[in-house]
Amino acid sequence: MKIGVKVMPRKEVLDTQGRAVENTLREHGQKLDRCTVGRYIVLDLPDADSEAAMARAKTMAETVLCNPLIETFELERL
Amino acid sequence: MKIGVKVMPRKEVLDTQGRAVENTLREHGQKLDRCTVGRYIVLDLPDADSEAAMARAKTMAETVLCNPLIETFELERL
Repeated sequence: MKIGVKVMPRKEVLDTQGRAVENTLREHGQKLDRCTVGRYIVLDLPDADSEAAMARAKTMAETVLCNPLIETFELERL
Repeated sequence: MKIGVKVMPRKEVLDTQGRAVENTLREHGQKLDRCTVGRYIVLDLPDADSEAAMARAKTMAETVLCNPLIETFELERL
């Protein structure tokens, strides 16, 4: 089963990618209040049980995919 | 209003980040079939009209956020 992991920078942390994209969009004439850039990881897991897959995805996010000092993550079933 | 833009590599394109994360997760003892790594961009737009905001987000994705040769994108209201 497929699980999506959305990893976004914490609000307190300077999101340099977001600032860069924000500036580029403004140079393209677009009005925007803010832009935040994070990562999206799709995990394709062999688990038949959806709860087990979600638990494993959470472990993967906590140990490998997300740096909790500067990022937060959300899981979603796809 | 906030709009999320999910930018993922096309299936035909070698997703080097995905392969790297896949290997790292396997080294951590996790079983997985596949892992794909893309970007997630949250746009905070001043538009009051949700349709207008979506149309502008689509333009931004097509012109700045996504490289259509190697990536596809999806929009979602947040």
